[in-house]
Amino acid sequence: MHFTVEKRDSNSLARAGILKTPHGNIKTPAFVAVATKATVKSLTPEMLTELGAQMVLGNTYHLYFEPGEGVVKAAGGLGKFMHWDGPTMTDSGGFQAFSLGAAYKKGVSKIAREMTEVRLQSDAEPALAVITEDGVTFKSHLDGSEHLFTPERSIQIQHDIGADIIFAFDECTSPHASDSYQREALARTHRWATRSLVQHRMLDNAQLLFGIVQGGRVQELREESARVIGGICPPAGGFDGFGIGGSFTKDDVHTAVGWVNTLLPEDKPRHLLGIGEPEDIVLAVEQGCDLFDCVTPTRNARNGSLYTREGKMNIGNARYRKDFFPIQQDCDCYTCNNFTKSYLAHLFRAHEMLAGTLATIHNLRFIIHLTEELRAAILDGTLSEYKNKFLTRYKK
Amino acid sequence: MHFTVEKRDSNSLARAGILKTPHGNIKTPAFVAVATKATVKSLTPEMLTELGAQMVLGNTYHLYFEPGEGVVKAAGGLGKFMHWDGPTMTDSGGFQAFSLGAAYKKGVSKIAREMTEVRLQSDAEPALAVITEDGVTFKSHLDGSEHLFTPERSIQIQHDIGADIIFAFDECTSPHASDSYQREALARTHRWATRSLVQHRMLDNAQLLFGIVQGGRVQELREESARVIGGICPPAGGFDGFGIGGSFTKDDVHTAVGWVNTLLPEDKPRHLLGIGEPEDIVLAVEQGCDLFDCVTPTRNARNGSLYTREGKMNIGNARYRKDFFPIQQDCDCYTCNNFTKSYLAHLFRAHEMLAGTLATIHNLRFIIHLTEELRAAILDGTLSEYKNKFLTRYKK
Repeated sequence: MHFTVEKRDSNSLARAGILKTPHGNIKTPAFVAVATKATVKSLTPEMLTELGAQMVLGNTYHLYFEPGEGVVKAAGGLGKFMHWDGPTMTDSGGFQAFSLGAAYKKGVSKIAREMTEVRLQSDAEPALAVITEDGVTFKSHLDGSEHLFTPERSIQIQHDIGADIIFAFDECTSPHASDSYQREALARTHRWATRSLVQHRMLDNAQLLFGIVQGGRVQELREESARVIGGICPPAGGFDGFGIGGSFTKDDVHTAVGWVNTLLPEDKPRHLLGIGEPEDIVLAVEQGCDLFDCVTPTRNARNGSLYTREGKMNIGNARYRKDFFPIQQDCDCYTCNNFTKSYLAHLFRAHEMLAGTLATIHNLRFIIHLTEELRAAILDGTLSEYKNKFLTRYKK
Repeated sequence: MHFTVEKRDSNSLARAGILKTPHGNIKTPAFVAVATKATVKSLTPEMLTELGAQMVLGNTYHLYFEPGEGVVKAAGGLGKFMHWDGPTMTDSGGFQAFSLGAAYKKGVSKIAREMTEVRLQSDAEPALAVITEDGVTFKSHLDGSEHLFTPERSIQIQHDIGADIIFAFDECTSPHASDSYQREALARTHRWATRSLVQHRMLDNAQLLFGIVQGGRVQELREESARVIGGICPPAGGFDGFGIGGSFTKDDVHTAVGWVNTLLPEDKPRHLLGIGEPEDIVLAVEQGCDLFDCVTPTRNARNGSLYTREGKMNIGNARYRKDFFPIQQDCDCYTCNNFTKSYLAHLFRAHEMLAGTLATIHNLRFIIHLTEELRAAILDGTLSEYKNKFLTRYKK
């Protein structure tokens, strides 16, 4: 077994576990650092190790275009290519084909915060992605050239990229799609899941394949998806773990996650895809999620929005220009150990590259430290207290 | 004595020495990493230490505007502000008041490679800097506000910034100024040198002050400047070292440097300001220079122009996309130890921040390693052979 649950929380779905990969073990709950284009923006791999990152996630869509999966394969795989010795993941590219294709420039993200701004149906721009039973035909966001991703093609590309954990090819529907479309898309995603699994088992490798649960915000569909994806079990074996995908609103993400995790097999890891603000992680861990990835902590960092236990602070605020204390006094990160808010405020004002690096180190460490504390609380049987304390102090 | 010459080359003006500062000793010849805005662009201080940097140079003009010398002073000085424990320098701000003021957007750099493109006299734009006996009045490149730098003000600002080594306030004339203007400016620079020194000795601190030799490309003026700046000796003591400033053409820099270094006191360090391409350093070390700074190696790096022993290579060239070897096989830098040209080519194509970081590490290490080899050659008595071997292999 590649996943071991060490301890279950008695009051929630939370658990602490160990996920084994060919490049090392991951203690869960864990936050996976996003390395979209085979680099966690602005950091060296050694910085990642120092801040406690256990795994990185590359992006199949982006790596397919640049440098191309053939280059990554020839380099010895994603980890070797980017000089990261630890475990690696790639997503399936489905979300990007959708979000850079069908939903291109329409403001669709994994959490649809501002629902009224999303007008997929009425938008006059022609869709850049066309979905058929076979797969998704989409135009490159780089040069407009046409490409086809099928479940088989996605698995083959991910095989070439060579991450330890890969994902089935799925369709991430718009939160505004009609009920009938949601059902149709979900059924297709389930057929694509089987095709992904069959293709994966045909390829000789040690990669773990995670299936993806969809179903939008509809409880019935989420539960159906969890049963189907959790139950697919061809002779060569079912999925090695599960991703939970789709768009949520900020307030229902943990509810939807709870529906799914109640039904998914208990002995396999669950990865909440693309969600990772501190409060989301706390609530989703309680609802039984083991793994997270999200670009928000690192993107926030590059924009000068820094995490503290009291919530986010904007380093651009004039008050920090003469503040000679670290971002957070009790933070153990390299940035807080060595630099003041005054210096960071200066670097951001001067548009210096080091600003992004130091801020990214802090925000990633904050999120990873949070998962470490959640894990310790689960092991100690104090998760509920920890959650209440954290959420009371942390202002969204 | 803060400077000790350990060994003189018997065939040239070159020497190997030790420069003592309150924050440590510098083995010369040495390349000073440029930290214009209190950061060597894209690098952490630990990276600088690892690649062998001994000292960093902040920019008085830029730090005066952002974050302001008061903030740097309140932080405990430049080194503390930027978390650099080693020796620090600041320039006087004179060159920037000139180049961002009078010569703003006119393409004037320390080496005037393309002389025909510089048309200072005929340019219709009003000068942004006005030079009087008192000092330079200039408009901020940020917001157009008017500012005055005098020798006294520059020294006071540099005192507040608190670097170990600071520079006298000088005027860097255009390479196209008339002979009569050159003479007038040089005489003024010499008066400013005395005013800088008097102001410096009035302030209670452990900083070393370097005077700056000017004189353009005219041998008579260069020699006069070396005699005057080298000979200024008020009761409280003369300059602690010397900067050699001004614009040169590529081919005459070492000639002009030789005129000056033949006359400057032998027991004090000589810093060639703003020049630092590999071939320049080799020739200027032979002509008796001990210290160098230049933005070119780091700027080249960010543009994907990487140093090798055969000359510069452009990592954007298509041939490197599938080149799984380091930039230079025998380079000992972090980048060459851990990353391939293929990965660097990918990072540059993807406009990733890590591209600049890894390239900067390599280029700085290349230049610093070159100064280490020059020092070793001087100590071994093999400088002439080393120079010939290096320049034969290195294609400009």
